[in-house]
Amino acid sequence: MPEVVFSVDQTKSMRDQAVPGHNRWHPDVPVAAMVRPGQEFRVECREWTDGQLGNNDSANDVRDVDLSRCHMLSGPIGVEGAQPGDLLVVDILDLGPVPQETGDAPGQGWGYTGVFAKANGGGFLTDYFPDAYKAIWDFHGQQATSRHLPGIRYTGITHPGLFGTAPSAELLARWNRRERALVDREPDRVPPLGLPPLLDGTLAGTADGSTADHIAREGARTVPARENGGNHDIKNFTRGSRVFYPVYVDDAKFSGGDLHFSQGDGEITFCGAIEMGGYIDFHVDLIKGGMEKYGITTNPVFMPGNVEPRYSEFLSFVGVSVDRETDENLYLDATMAYRNAALNAVEYFKKWGFTGEQAYLLLGSAPIEGRISGIVDIPNACCTLYVPTEIFDFDVRPTSEGPVMADRGQCAVTS
Amino acid sequence: MPEVVFSVDQTKSMRDQAVPGHNRWHPDVPVAAMVRPGQEFRVECREWTDGQLGNNDSANDVRDVDLSRCHMLSGPIGVEGAQPGDLLVVDILDLGPVPQETGDAPGQGWGYTGVFAKANGGGFLTDYFPDAYKAIWDFHGQQATSRHLPGIRYTGITHPGLFGTAPSAELLARWNRRERALVDREPDRVPPLGLPPLLDGTLAGTADGSTADHIAREGARTVPARENGGNHDIKNFTRGSRVFYPVYVDDAKFSGGDLHFSQGDGEITFCGAIEMGGYIDFHVDLIKGGMEKYGITTNPVFMPGNVEPRYSEFLSFVGVSVDRETDENLYLDATMAYRNAALNAVEYFKKWGFTGEQAYLLLGSAPIEGRISGIVDIPNACCTLYVPTEIFDFDVRPTSEGPVMADRGQCAVTS
Amino acid sequence: MPEVVFSVDQTKSMRDQAVPGHNRWHPDVPVAAMVRPGQEFRVECREWTDGQLGNNDSANDVRDVDLSRCHMLSGPIGVEGAQPGDLLVVDILDLGPVPQETGDAPGQGWGYTGVFAKANGGGFLTDYFPDAYKAIWDFHGQQATSRHLPGIRYTGITHPGLFGTAPSAELLARWNRRERALVDREPDRVPPLGLPPLLDGTLAGTADGSTADHIAREGARTVPARENGGNHDIKNFTRGSRVFYPVYVDDAKFSGGDLHFSQGDGEITFCGAIEMGGYIDFHVDLIKGGMEKYGITTNPVFMPGNVEPRYSEFLSFVGVSVDRETDENLYLDATMAYRNAALNAVEYFKKWGFTGEQAYLLLGSAPIEGRISGIVDIPNACCTLYVPTEIFDFDVRPTSEGPVMADRGQCAVTS
Amino acid sequence: MPEVVFSVDQTKSMRDQAVPGHNRWHPDVPVAAMVRPGQEFRVECREWTDGQLGNNDSANDVRDVDLSRCHMLSGPIGVEGAQPGDLLVVDILDLGPVPQETGDAPGQGWGYTGVFAKANGGGFLTDYFPDAYKAIWDFHGQQATSRHLPGIRYTGITHPGLFGTAPSAELLARWNRRERALVDREPDRVPPLGLPPLLDGTLAGTADGSTADHIAREGARTVPARENGGNHDIKNFTRGSRVFYPVYVDDAKFSGGDLHFSQGDGEITFCGAIEMGGYIDFHVDLIKGGMEKYGITTNPVFMPGNVEPRYSEFLSFVGVSVDRETDENLYLDATMAYRNAALNAVEYFKKWGFTGEQAYLLLGSAPIEGRISGIVDIPNACCTLYVPTEIFDFDVRPTSEGPVMADRGQCAVTS
Repeated sequence: MPEVVFSVDQTKSMRDQAVPGHNRWHPDVPVAAMVRPGQEFRVECREWTDGQLGNNDSANDVRDVDLSRCHMLSGPIGVEGAQPGDLLVVDILDLGPVPQETGDAPGQGWGYTGVFAKANGGGFLTDYFPDAYKAIWDFHGQQATSRHLPGIRYTGITHPGLFGTAPSAELLARWNRRERALVDREPDRVPPLGLPPLLDGTLAGTADGSTADHIAREGARTVPARENGGNHDIKNFTRGSRVFYPVYVDDAKFSGGDLHFSQGDGEITFCGAIEMGGYIDFHVDLIKGGMEKYGITTNPVFMPGNVEPRYSEFLSFVGVSVDRETDENLYLDATMAYRNAALNAVEYFKKWGFTGEQAYLLLGSAPIEGRISGIVDIPNACCTLYVPTEIFDFDVRPTSEGPVMADRGQCAVTS
Repeated sequence: MPEVVFSVDQTKSMRDQAVPGHNRWHPDVPVAAMVRPGQEFRVECREWTDGQLGNNDSANDVRDVDLSRCHMLSGPIGVEGAQPGDLLVVDILDLGPVPQETGDAPGQGWGYTGVFAKANGGGFLTDYFPDAYKAIWDFHGQQATSRHLPGIRYTGITHPGLFGTAPSAELLARWNRRERALVDREPDRVPPLGLPPLLDGTLAGTADGSTADHIAREGARTVPARENGGNHDIKNFTRGSRVFYPVYVDDAKFSGGDLHFSQGDGEITFCGAIEMGGYIDFHVDLIKGGMEKYGITTNPVFMPGNVEPRYSEFLSFVGVSVDRETDENLYLDATMAYRNAALNAVEYFKKWGFTGEQAYLLLGSAPIEGRISGIVDIPNACCTLYVPTEIFDFDVRPTSEGPVMADRGQCAVTS
Repeated sequence: MPEVVFSVDQTKSMRDQAVPGHNRWHPDVPVAAMVRPGQEFRVECREWTDGQLGNNDSANDVRDVDLSRCHMLSGPIGVEGAQPGDLLVVDILDLGPVPQETGDAPGQGWGYTGVFAKANGGGFLTDYFPDAYKAIWDFHGQQATSRHLPGIRYTGITHPGLFGTAPSAELLARWNRRERALVDREPDRVPPLGLPPLLDGTLAGTADGSTADHIAREGARTVPARENGGNHDIKNFTRGSRVFYPVYVDDAKFSGGDLHFSQGDGEITFCGAIEMGGYIDFHVDLIKGGMEKYGITTNPVFMPGNVEPRYSEFLSFVGVSVDRETDENLYLDATMAYRNAALNAVEYFKKWGFTGEQAYLLLGSAPIEGRISGIVDIPNACCTLYVPTEIFDFDVRPTSEGPVMADRGQCAVTS
Repeated sequence: MPEVVFSVDQTKSMRDQAVPGHNRWHPDVPVAAMVRPGQEFRVECREWTDGQLGNNDSANDVRDVDLSRCHMLSGPIGVEGAQPGDLLVVDILDLGPVPQETGDAPGQGWGYTGVFAKANGGGFLTDYFPDAYKAIWDFHGQQATSRHLPGIRYTGITHPGLFGTAPSAELLARWNRRERALVDREPDRVPPLGLPPLLDGTLAGTADGSTADHIAREGARTVPARENGGNHDIKNFTRGSRVFYPVYVDDAKFSGGDLHFSQGDGEITFCGAIEMGGYIDFHVDLIKGGMEKYGITTNPVFMPGNVEPRYSEFLSFVGVSVDRETDENLYLDATMAYRNAALNAVEYFKKWGFTGEQAYLLLGSAPIEGRISGIVDIPNACCTLYVPTEIFDFDVRPTSEGPVMADRGQCAVTS
């Protein structure tokens, strides 16, 4: 086990840790620990909402979650010698849920998948599922099952949803400018088009006083992926992966968290992976001047690991960019195409006795693949969503006999 | 070898075949051959432009291609007993390029990948690459190399770009209505938002007289994927795949073509796979009433085959939904995110000596994967584009030494 | 399709071809065709017994087969510039069954798996199955089914059982010496310990007169694998593979055949793959002096292709080196361990209604894997035999319900 | 983390644990802990020699190891309700090295691979490598590197070498009978043909007095695999695997250990995996009467997990059953064939600058595959040994340039 450079007590909020983390991107969040190129080290993480959700059978906690506090990130980890223009080479050596025995924190033998209510967060299919839902997952080594999704068992591709380097002041200003412009197009939209800086709920690491103030006023929310990495939610970003992050500030200031036990491509339920706290082991190195050398200036590049679970049979659902409610034809809109593929999958699984919301939770958390199949065949984008058939304990393929309808229970709902 | 129910002489245009195919979707295109559920049969196909492009070093033929004639489809194949509401179960038993020895038709030992000019077709990166380009590929069994892309060799995932069932009159009318509405939003756009019915170039199979006339007036263009299947351009739709197509007319009227030796997810160069003529062997069956039974009403469902080439190492490029020219932030726009991932890949490969247009042609044709990674993290969609490193005959991974710049030639350009 | 340098008319015996092949290893078999390093070319092959077995429901033809004629090899192909001490680099570009429509020759849409009688050939489990049996397989593109093994379907890993370079006179003499010594230990054994040169049935290519005579007197039988390659029966030697063969004579004199549609590791039924005639496309090159450079002096080295079917779930049977009849404990005997693993598998499948001989035929032909798991744990070698569960159309895994016994027919038997 | 039912303090010998384990198979070893069908639980394990080997650069400890103490097993774990004739269904949920930070016990961040001296243990190639050697491996998450094998890095397929159920008194007597008969054939052989019961070094769990005495006198040594499972050394027996063990005594009495971070098929160096202590998490269940139901009476059956590392390119070495020293031709001897494949691999890697003993250590510990390719082609068995090329940090494939010879250091040797 490598040295723990950022530790977390899972019985406490991130705010109350010996060295607290942060929940905004800002160059002035003070370094929590320094590491050297070539070093291996461990970072411990809180689950992304900082423990607002419980191992129970009600979705009320999802409905009422305070999103201003999210995501709770561990770090920043400073890397000696890192300078703007370098590439930070990060290897994920290992990661997993909280090693300690059973407990109340997500990651202690269990995790959850949630669907946010449209009024508080929303999600990919929020127009179809406007209420809050939840499924609790139990961990069995590398596999997960859920009392809310009977008949399903799969091997998790554990990964962090979110890691990244700190933005420079200039880059941060650019983010705030462009996202503000987007939000201003429809400022009263629910859910909103974007999330501007927010004083409420900001945690600025060990900063205090005026530093903490301007971090809160300027700090970028952690929800989206951006140039620095951030909330990629790439499910294949698992053990054995190597990532090349652009460096924008001295010491790189590497932070992250939002560990997932498993996730489907797109994380369509928004809070959609199997969310957990846990640990992640890294090796870091630098490619000096690498951004220019390799033209990696806009986004990180990564190389996935070689230990994903081996599934060999899939049901693949197709969607094209036509609005199924209005029959409006959108122009090469992959988002709409993938939404339709997801809705087609939901309809399919309902024929077997799952509720729509169960199917939605399944697609967010299971190791499904989301592919952009055709993106040039005007006017229709075509996306495909691959569901491994081996995760069901019954034969889920279409046959001449028709589907076997059964009572498959229900997920956690609101009261 | 199963019985050939639709045969093609590769020295002749589809128009001049003993039984010609068609290039519009319409319920009244006459059945070319009947098969029974349970039957195995072969369909021969012309390359999608009907042989307008040659094995040469000029992209003039791409620039000047007549798109009104495309795609040239083989069929319709009628399936005995098929009725609206059924699912047509199609197994792809085998497919490959034209078995005959070397010749002038694409598929006779060679194929091509093209980038259309913005003025005549366009493509995914047409604003960045407005001219026409081409790469010729030589087939070596299941592998392909190109004199226009030295240092690259990969195993093709051969597949048909386009197969589908005939639409009913009602469904066809609905397509024409919604696509017309889209085109009308910006009628003078180049390239256009969509392609309405077009008398010029229509081939209506064995129909003539007034039937041929109204097929030409009403028939839907074959470019996009729609409810009936159509131009899916799903690269994993290869040997061993099973597809469940909705049936909209009696006998199902199954047609297709546009065979690809290989393609990357998205087929981003538009004419972007390795295009070829060839043969495809099918087994068909029916699930009576299957559309309702399984809720498969909107799009086909498929199960991919189990013989894709096994690649184990990838460079994965990330893109988010921010316009790189204007810094405009789009809202969860997966199309923009994937475009940025592609542009990031192009920039990377330019550092090794490829031209941008070579890199673009590579991404369209090689077995790259395009994934929707994050689709809910407002405001940024996040897409990833996986390039297998094994297809390069040099080490293409980032290291501290920097990339090895070399003269890697050029693709075919216009004169 | 590359140039055919060795062609075969499947309606005729190898003896009656325009350029006949050969069935003994000898340096003096005349070159049938020359190729250059860098060339791609096609070789057509007869099924290994030269068409002695038919597509019928009797195993009499297996029982009565004349083994003195086998294997019928295509070649030798001379490679310009090849000299003793070089490595011949052979890429398998493509291979498949006979392209022509249905016919009587194995490979024309069908193939067979046989179990030789103990009195005429024997096999791995000959003490348990002393009679002759046969299963006929129908090809469906890349998949095979058999009326003699209902409920089974799998994707073939097509490969040649046998290719190799000609031995030098010295190497040939050494083979004859050491194999004669083995046979002489138990000269009357049935089946024999080895097969010395045999005048009967020898085919010496285009040689005649005294050359044909001494080839017949000295020529090594083609059954085993030896230093020159030969009858490796390596099931992963499929499309995309590269092999490095030692060169022992000028021009290398590359020959082979014995194409298989599929085979299990070990080819335990002896005539155990799905046997067929067909074609194979090669690319060849030379590494001058490569035997010494790389220390590849004793046997070929190969690199498997990357397109094997993707199976993900297996039943793995274990065997150790204890004779199950006598309880004699053998010392680290992997052959006995693998035999026990095979017998354990046979017993298992009998519980589902297959006959023992059906199970035996299945293990010889399906893409099972045979592993040497422990080879040092005195006194017991431990081997494992992996059967993919996906090849059965029923759930073949052990559960608390017990196996589903059904009437699963029978293979072809003798009359 | 499931409940720990057998715990180990890694600073102490197995003899000195609160509840000690055992190192002989005997039905009278007392149950150390009971579990219920359906239960998940953790078992902690000592490295197999009980800590006789150190993290140093001398192989003296390998040379002088006391093998009478091995293997130190954790257990027996009793399973409620298990009776002779049942199948014990064991799922491996998770396993890994010792979670505690760096320490002296193998598994605490490091492990080792050893070659036993011929005079004390021997191994697969002991006639070629009669001395003792060792390589120390450092763990980096799921990957391992060694200062004794520079340029090598691979992903471990962690697995237990040895688990099994207790034999009945009758089965134990049968083992002793047949192994004694083998040893008696050549009683003075070094290394011996087998290992009979041995009073020295016996640890009988919590038994004492006369029970301990007769366990010592009768207890079967743990080296080989037998009907009860035992030292299978199956490298694919990793997380996600399910094993069906025959039950021979009430409560099944399930024991094991000998955890490996990685191993090659055959574990050819004998002490050949990367040996470590650690933990293993199980789920158990019963199939009542399953031995007869499924015909699983002779050896366990297992289903491998689906998370093995994905390697896609291999160098495959071939061996046949001819003694390379004497040119004696053995009859279908797979052990000899695999030995020759291993020796061929050793020769190959020596051309790149590795010493023979380094290459030998590599083949024992890296995720190589050992296949029985041809087992019926008289007189030569043919085995193949697959080495993934991705584990080398240089290009190890044969090319016309010849191998790159370099100083690659040396493993630990004796002084």
